[in-house]
Amino acid sequence: MMPFASLADAEALDRADPLAPFRDHFALPAGVIYLDGNSLGPLPVATLAAQADAVANQWGSGLIRSWNDAGWIDAPLRIGAKLAPLIGAGADEVVVTDSTSVNLFKAVVAAAGLDTRPGALLTEAGNFPTDLYIARGAVAALPHLRLDVAAPGEILNAIGNDTRVVLLTHVHYKSGHRHDMAAITRAAHAVGAVIIWDVSHSVGAVAVDLNGCDVDLAVGCGYKYLNGGPGAPSFLFAARRLQSRLHSPLAGWFGHADPFAFTDDFVAAPGIARFQCGTPPMLSLLALETGIDVFLQADAAALFAKSAALFDLFADLVAARCPTLKLVTARDPAARGSHISFAHPAGYAIVQALIARGVIGDFRAPDVLRFGLTPLYLGFADTWRAVDQLAAVLGTEEWREARFSLRSKVT
Amino acid sequence: MMPFASLADAEALDRADPLAPFRDHFALPAGVIYLDGNSLGPLPVATLAAQADAVANQWGSGLIRSWNDAGWIDAPLRIGAKLAPLIGAGADEVVVTDSTSVNLFKAVVAAAGLDTRPGALLTEAGNFPTDLYIARGAVAALPHLRLDVAAPGEILNAIGNDTRVVLLTHVHYKSGHRHDMAAITRAAHAVGAVIIWDVSHSVGAVAVDLNGCDVDLAVGCGYKYLNGGPGAPSFLFAARRLQSRLHSPLAGWFGHADPFAFTDDFVAAPGIARFQCGTPPMLSLLALETGIDVFLQADAAALFAKSAALFDLFADLVAARCPTLKLVTARDPAARGSHISFAHPAGYAIVQALIARGVIGDFRAPDVLRFGLTPLYLGFADTWRAVDQLAAVLGTEEWREARFSLRSKVT
Repeated sequence: MMPFASLADAEALDRADPLAPFRDHFALPAGVIYLDGNSLGPLPVATLAAQADAVANQWGSGLIRSWNDAGWIDAPLRIGAKLAPLIGAGADEVVVTDSTSVNLFKAVVAAAGLDTRPGALLTEAGNFPTDLYIARGAVAALPHLRLDVAAPGEILNAIGNDTRVVLLTHVHYKSGHRHDMAAITRAAHAVGAVIIWDVSHSVGAVAVDLNGCDVDLAVGCGYKYLNGGPGAPSFLFAARRLQSRLHSPLAGWFGHADPFAFTDDFVAAPGIARFQCGTPPMLSLLALETGIDVFLQADAAALFAKSAALFDLFADLVAARCPTLKLVTARDPAARGSHISFAHPAGYAIVQALIARGVIGDFRAPDVLRFGLTPLYLGFADTWRAVDQLAAVLGTEEWREARFSLRSKVT
Repeated sequence: MMPFASLADAEALDRADPLAPFRDHFALPAGVIYLDGNSLGPLPVATLAAQADAVANQWGSGLIRSWNDAGWIDAPLRIGAKLAPLIGAGADEVVVTDSTSVNLFKAVVAAAGLDTRPGALLTEAGNFPTDLYIARGAVAALPHLRLDVAAPGEILNAIGNDTRVVLLTHVHYKSGHRHDMAAITRAAHAVGAVIIWDVSHSVGAVAVDLNGCDVDLAVGCGYKYLNGGPGAPSFLFAARRLQSRLHSPLAGWFGHADPFAFTDDFVAAPGIARFQCGTPPMLSLLALETGIDVFLQADAAALFAKSAALFDLFADLVAARCPTLKLVTARDPAARGSHISFAHPAGYAIVQALIARGVIGDFRAPDVLRFGLTPLYLGFADTWRAVDQLAAVLGTEEWREARFSLRSKVT
């Protein structure tokens, strides 16, 4: 029995949705149903004016004075403090700067420095590639650590007495699978290991409670559910109880206790500020701040509940109308994020054909079609229409047209 | 005998200056003489429209498609290729991404990996702080290297048989002193050492010929003379002959040979692309591209000649009218960059009083007043008026007012 038999049912749900007005906060193009906010969030309307102000007034008129007068110098910590409630962190536990990959490196090396007995950094196969690459690169430079890569689903079994650092992604970028952050963190701590969570696919998508789970370090992405713009800077969380013992391997001048004293010797800033490195990319950083400001206007619990409802609608409609697509993501809301994935051998061409119809999802090798269900600007009728187009692509087999299998640089 | 007796003389020079029309390419505020383009370049007029396009059209309408359709994925290499002629590099030897501090770390660790016999990384005392901090942090993680810090002026004497890496800043951020890049590079190579030049204060300020000097690696800054915007991404140069042997310690997914294959194992991209790490901050990166596009319209040799003339004017006028200021920067154009520095015990307050009069320079601890002479948008009359205000600040002793000694976060 499907819960929504028709588009009219979905439209009725949109009319009753208290989050529906947030759609108008985003400058989504006409004729597009955007199901890729898990990869790059759309442009908030407020960012247009905020970015123009940052360029014309703060940079153009304020010039160098804006480091003080427009608060640029405080932006990495100010934006971190704004973001903190979304991840269950204290305002003094988050800094926004650099890319997720760079912050991963800082977190891994800093975590490894807490316990230099020989042992392993443990992660899992199929983790987001940059997490694996950065971990491998960091371990190569840390003589006391080896890299252990557990099979997916085997993390709890793989944590052992010589595990020193555990590095995991909370919500999997491809399958959408969500780890049990509390249970794995407890298991890591039980053997004395430090845990680092990558919450790139969970921040703004599901409830994240880093301090509630007693997490040590975390990193995450600003350009997905937070709508911070392409390549928006990343955030790094370090639990207050550990900060004074953590040393960033990228000890640049912005992480100095007194950067404008211009001394030859490095003295780490107190607290989370020590994880800053160089001058942050201010225009990108300020765009992220606006994205977070817009996001914070919505009720997080309502967002997560609507995400679950959108997922059920999408999954049920696909099951009924697109039987050749195999659901990859777990149905249990507690076991997943806010995107839904399906497997199909012709996944790439199907996604391209769907994009040509104005429904933008994405593809992840080798065979996964991925659709972001972002309750802030996506409605039930959007979801209904998206599956309608997906069913049409599959029904007409138009994805077999040669033009849809031409690979782009970015898939 | 002063070369310019009056403002009228300076105005005559402006009328004859073929670079004078470039002033209109910059959105400088009225009532300001901007002498801090060596710290943060001003806003190019073209950046206003380009950034609005990047935000509204590329991000807003293009959404995720812009990684392919707007060429975002190619931006770090495309902008590197544009910048290459300004530093005497090949188009395939420069990438733009991350901050200068992060790129310094990559360069130091990659250089150190070329020769792992025990030895020293040599730099000099008083180098820009982040260069010293990053070098110290990198050496701490490299068991075969120690850090040697030569006294300023002693670099050639300090290069020895166990020198493995030499890290120097071409033009000093405070004094304006310029090292002899060719001679020091030869000396480093003579003992088998690898050299890394930080050209942050020279790119766009003086002629830089990395390949002509046979330089191995270099990094530099986009937000000073290139007018790329606050915190604009940095560039990294690696000589073509070395690229395949250099391994970035920050091996993130954007440095992978095939990032969208999403494989678990890292395979470095061929060439300079391997020095990319995470997703680059695209809005900041595109603002830098516009800054470089504007810069490239000017004739570099004319710029450097005008810089020398502005310096002579500034130095002569100060010598005549501000005798309490002690010139720090060398008079020989070949021995300096494109800023002029003076020492005065009350330097901070003098700079603040001057800013209150609309003449923006900056201060560097403990006692240096620093003025950027940027021929792209600064004229001879501007320079004359700036010294006129400086003389007034000193003559009235208004810098003694308490408000001018209140320290800002950023000095």
